[in-house]
Amino acid sequence: MKKFLAEIDVMPLKEILDPQGKAVTGSMKNLGLPEISNVRIGRHITLEVEAENKEAASEKVETACKKLLANLIMESYNFDIKEI
Amino acid sequence: MKKFLAEIDVMPLKEILDPQGKAVTGSMKNLGLPEISNVRIGRHITLEVEAENKEAASEKVETACKKLLANLIMESYNFDIKEI
Repeated sequence: MKKFLAEIDVMPLKEILDPQGKAVTGSMKNLGLPEISNVRIGRHITLEVEAENKEAASEKVETACKKLLANLIMESYNFDIKEI
Repeated sequence: MKKFLAEIDVMPLKEILDPQGKAVTGSMKNLGLPEISNVRIGRHITLEVEAENKEAASEKVETACKKLLANLIMESYNFDIKEI
């Protein structure tokens, strides 16, 4: 078995309202950073996975994303995997 | 002025307890994915920034991270910037 590190980004779908992102965008102006706009906030998740090879590792991470890490009704996900 | 997209990852420092990550790691076993371990959960933030050039954009994102997006006592951050 080999060990892999997965880096996963889970973001709200573009058409979904992102109140947190809106609030932070507004705060940027108070910080003197009006040039910053369209802030969107999601989750960055890292995990380790043991598998025979990279394809098998990807399948396990895919399952974890679909079943637990992302709410597919409101979120999208993408991930990178590398052997460690 | 040019427009840039920043992709920022804010993660709990390694030495800081990550109860959320621990809980999700435990859930992986219930999902039939015992090969997944050491889950850590942070924030993935995207934003747009207008600036003269990439260095100026980086400075603004750096300020935003230090002042608002990351709690430097418990978190670390890194980001990528590309022109859009």
